[in-house]
Amino acid sequence: VQRVKPALLKGFDQEFLPHEQLQFNQLLDTIRRSFELYGFLPIETPSAELREVLTSKGAVEKEIYALSRLAAAPGEESAGRGALRFDLTVPLARYVAMREHQLVFPFRRYQIQRVWRGENPQANKGRFREFYQCDIDVIGKGKLSPLTEAEIPSVIWRLFTQMDIGAFRIRINNRKVLRGLLQSFAIPEEKAADALRVLDKIEKVDRASILGDLAEAGVAGTAAEALYALLSEKRETDATLQQLRGLGSVRSEVFEQGLKELEFVVGAIRDFGVPDSAFRVDLGVVRGLDYYTGTIYETTLIDHPDLGSICSGGRYDDLASYFTATKLPGVGISIGLSRLFAKLNEMKLLKQPARTPAEVLVTVMDSSLLTRYLSWANRLRGEGINTEVYLEAAKLGEQLGYADKKGFKLALVAGSREVEQGVVQVKKLADKSSVNCRDGELVDTVKSMLAHKGN
Amino acid sequence: VQRVKPALLKGFDQEFLPHEQLQFNQLLDTIRRSFELYGFLPIETPSAELREVLTSKGAVEKEIYALSRLAAAPGEESAGRGALRFDLTVPLARYVAMREHQLVFPFRRYQIQRVWRGENPQANKGRFREFYQCDIDVIGKGKLSPLTEAEIPSVIWRLFTQMDIGAFRIRINNRKVLRGLLQSFAIPEEKAADALRVLDKIEKVDRASILGDLAEAGVAGTAAEALYALLSEKRETDATLQQLRGLGSVRSEVFEQGLKELEFVVGAIRDFGVPDSAFRVDLGVVRGLDYYTGTIYETTLIDHPDLGSICSGGRYDDLASYFTATKLPGVGISIGLSRLFAKLNEMKLLKQPARTPAEVLVTVMDSSLLTRYLSWANRLRGEGINTEVYLEAAKLGEQLGYADKKGFKLALVAGSREVEQGVVQVKKLADKSSVNCRDGELVDTVKSMLAHKGN
Repeated sequence: VQRVKPALLKGFDQEFLPHEQLQFNQLLDTIRRSFELYGFLPIETPSAELREVLTSKGAVEKEIYALSRLAAAPGEESAGRGALRFDLTVPLARYVAMREHQLVFPFRRYQIQRVWRGENPQANKGRFREFYQCDIDVIGKGKLSPLTEAEIPSVIWRLFTQMDIGAFRIRINNRKVLRGLLQSFAIPEEKAADALRVLDKIEKVDRASILGDLAEAGVAGTAAEALYALLSEKRETDATLQQLRGLGSVRSEVFEQGLKELEFVVGAIRDFGVPDSAFRVDLGVVRGLDYYTGTIYETTLIDHPDLGSICSGGRYDDLASYFTATKLPGVGISIGLSRLFAKLNEMKLLKQPARTPAEVLVTVMDSSLLTRYLSWANRLRGEGINTEVYLEAAKLGEQLGYADKKGFKLALVAGSREVEQGVVQVKKLADKSSVNCRDGELVDTVKSMLAHKGN
Repeated sequence: VQRVKPALLKGFDQEFLPHEQLQFNQLLDTIRRSFELYGFLPIETPSAELREVLTSKGAVEKEIYALSRLAAAPGEESAGRGALRFDLTVPLARYVAMREHQLVFPFRRYQIQRVWRGENPQANKGRFREFYQCDIDVIGKGKLSPLTEAEIPSVIWRLFTQMDIGAFRIRINNRKVLRGLLQSFAIPEEKAADALRVLDKIEKVDRASILGDLAEAGVAGTAAEALYALLSEKRETDATLQQLRGLGSVRSEVFEQGLKELEFVVGAIRDFGVPDSAFRVDLGVVRGLDYYTGTIYETTLIDHPDLGSICSGGRYDDLASYFTATKLPGVGISIGLSRLFAKLNEMKLLKQPARTPAEVLVTVMDSSLLTRYLSWANRLRGEGINTEVYLEAAKLGEQLGYADKKGFKLALVAGSREVEQGVVQVKKLADKSSVNCRDGELVDTVKSMLAHKGN
C-alpha cells in the first residue's frame, strides 16, 4: 500500500481529542442556552453562498475560499459559482432579505456555525482559517427600539457570568459620538473613516505610532493630540458622560445625537440589571467597520486585556441594503469561539471540568453471562443513564483501566457467583469505593450514586 | 445601490425557517442523545482536508469540492491544497491514524457534521450537495469483538424507536456470505466486485435489468438466476439462516465463515434486546462498497420502503490502511440526516412538534414601568425560564400577536394599576386563559403553568 501521511491542512487545524471536544461542546451549550434565555431562535445557513452574494457589500476577495471541482465533470466547468462564507452577517442579510415576508419581526436569531477566512496564520498567531462564530442579532423591519442596544450588554453579561472565566468588562461607545468628535476637530467626512481605522488600534499600539498614522491620514497637530487624549483616557462611566457633556467646543448635531443615545443606553443597561462593575463607557472602543452607526461594544477580560475583545458588535442602520429596499435596522454581537477557546485553554481559565457523557461501564467477567450484563445495560439506558458494555475479551483490570481513561463514573462488576446470588457490585471509579446491591435495586443504586457525584 | 438578488447556491439550499430549524435540531438532539446512551464520544473534524488525504483511498474526484482563493494573495497561489470532505469516514481514518497513541481503544466516536458532494441534483431528486451525516464507529486496535457487530443494531433500534417515525426494519447480511455465494456459483474473484455492484440494486430495479446487468458483468445463465432468486426472496430470519445452512452445493471456506458470523450476530442481536420485529437477515442487502468485510446493515421504514435505507453501514477489517500500518478493524453506521429530514417532512412522519425555546413574553403596556418588567424577566431567567421582553412601542394586541406567531407559551401583562397593586396577569397563549398572581408569586405561578403545558 502507498501510504499518505495523516496530517491537517494549514489553518484548518483546530481539531480536538474527545475530552477537549466535550469541553468545547460544553461552552457551545452555555452560549446556546444563554441566547435562548433571551428569546433568540436558531438558524443555520449553508456553508457556501453564491459568489455575488458574498461580495455584494465588498469583501477581501483574497481571503475568501472559492469552490471548484477537484476534477471537471463532463459537460460542466470545474469552477463553480459558490464560495464559503467568511462571516455570519452577510448570510444573515441574504436570509432576511429572502424571507422577509415569512419572518416575525423584530427577528431575534442566533447562529453558531463555522466560517472560513484565508488569512495568513503566521501573521495572526492563534487564529485559524476555519473557526466558529457565535452570533446574535435583533433585526427590525423599518424600525428598532434603542432599548435593544441596551439589552445586548445584558445578554453578554449573563453569558460570561455563566461561563465563569473571570471578571470582564463590556465596553461601550457610540459611533455618532466618535463622528461628532471628528467633526468638531474639523476633520472632513472623507478623512473620518481612515482616522477611525487608525484610532481603532489605540489600545494595541503606542501614542507615537497612533499620532504618526493619524498624520498620514491627514489628521495632525492639536486635533490629533486632543483626539488621542480623549480616546485613551480611562474614566468611570458617569465621569466620561460628564466630560462629553462638558465639551463646549463640540456642537455638532451628530455629536449631540450620539451623546443622547449613549446616555439613554447607559441608563437602560442599568435598568436591565447589568452592574456597573461589568460595563463601562469607553471612548477608546472604535470598531473598524463603517457598518456600525450607533452603540458599539467590545468585551475584555479584566485580568487578560492582551486577549483583546472576546465579544464585539454594535448597532447598524440597514442590514441588507445590497439585497432589498426594505430598511432593516439591527444590532448584533459576535463571539469568535475557536480563538477564545484556544486562549482560555492556554491560560487555564476554563474552570468547569468537561461533563463527560460516560456514566456507567458494565464490565464482562464471564462471557457466558453476557445476556445478564446486557439486560442491566438496557435497564439503565431505559432510565436515560449512559451505559456502555465492555465487549472485548479482557481481564477485569484492563476493563477498569479503560473505564478510568474514558472518564466513567461507575463500573458494574459481577462474576458468576454474584450473578447466582442476584448481586451486583457498583464501583465508584473516582475513589475506588463500591457498593453491593440486589439486582432489583440496581437502577436506584446507580441513580443515587450518580447524583451523589454531583451529576 | 446596485442590488444583488438574494438567492441560494444550487444544491446548497436546505435552509430552514426558525421553526423548521428547531425541528431539525430536535432530531439532531435525539440522535446525539442515543449515541451518548451507548458510550460514544463526540469528535468534529475540519471541513477541509489535504487533497492527498481525501483521495488516498481513491474517490470520485469530480464530486469533490476543492478550495482556492477568490483572488490570489500576493506571493501565494490562489489554488490551495485543501478540499471539502465528502464523508466522515476518511476524516475518521486520518484522525485515528494521527492520534492512535492518544486515543482509548476500542475507540467509540460519534460525529455529526456536514459533508459536501458535487453530485448532480437533477439526477438525485431530494439530494443536496451539502448535507448532514450522523455517524458512529467503533474502532479496535488490532482486534474488535464480533459482539460489536451485534451492538450496532441495538443502537439503531433504540434511536429510531425514540425518533418515533413508524415501524422500521434493520436488515442484516454478511459480506462473506455474499462472496461465498459468488464463489460457489464459480464467479471468479475479479468479477465479484462488479457482480455485487449490480446486485446492490436488486430492490430498486426489475429482474430483467438485474439479469441483463449481471450478464454484462460476466455472470449469466443458471448462476445469475439462482443468485437473483436467493437474494430477492424475503423470509424470516431463522428461515433464511436455515436455507443458507441447507445450501449443500456451497462449501467455500469464506461462505462457512460468513454463515458462522451471521448466526453468531443474529443470536447476539437478540441478546442485546432487539425484538425480531425490528430486524431481519436479508440477503438482498449488498452495500456497494468493497470496504465492508463482515456484517452489513440497511434500515428501512416498513411503510415507506421507497425511501430507501435511512441508516446503513457495516464491519470493515482495516479503517486506515492508507495512513498507518496499524490494523484498525471497525464497525460503523451512517445516517444521511438532511435527506431523511426532507423526506420525513414531505411524508408528514415527524410526529413530535418542535420544542420551542420561547417560554414567556413580558409585554410592555407602560414604558415608564420598564424597570419593573425587566426585573420580572431577570427573575424568570434566573430560574432558567426563557423570557423575552417586548421592547418595541406597540399596542398590547400587536405584542400578543407576536407572542402567538413566535410560539410563546405564556405572556405577562400588567399596566400601571396592576403594578401599583403588586399584581401580574399571566396569560396562557394556547387557550387565552389567564391567571392573576401577586408579584412575589410570579416565578412559582409561571413554573406551574409551564409544567401544566407539558413542558
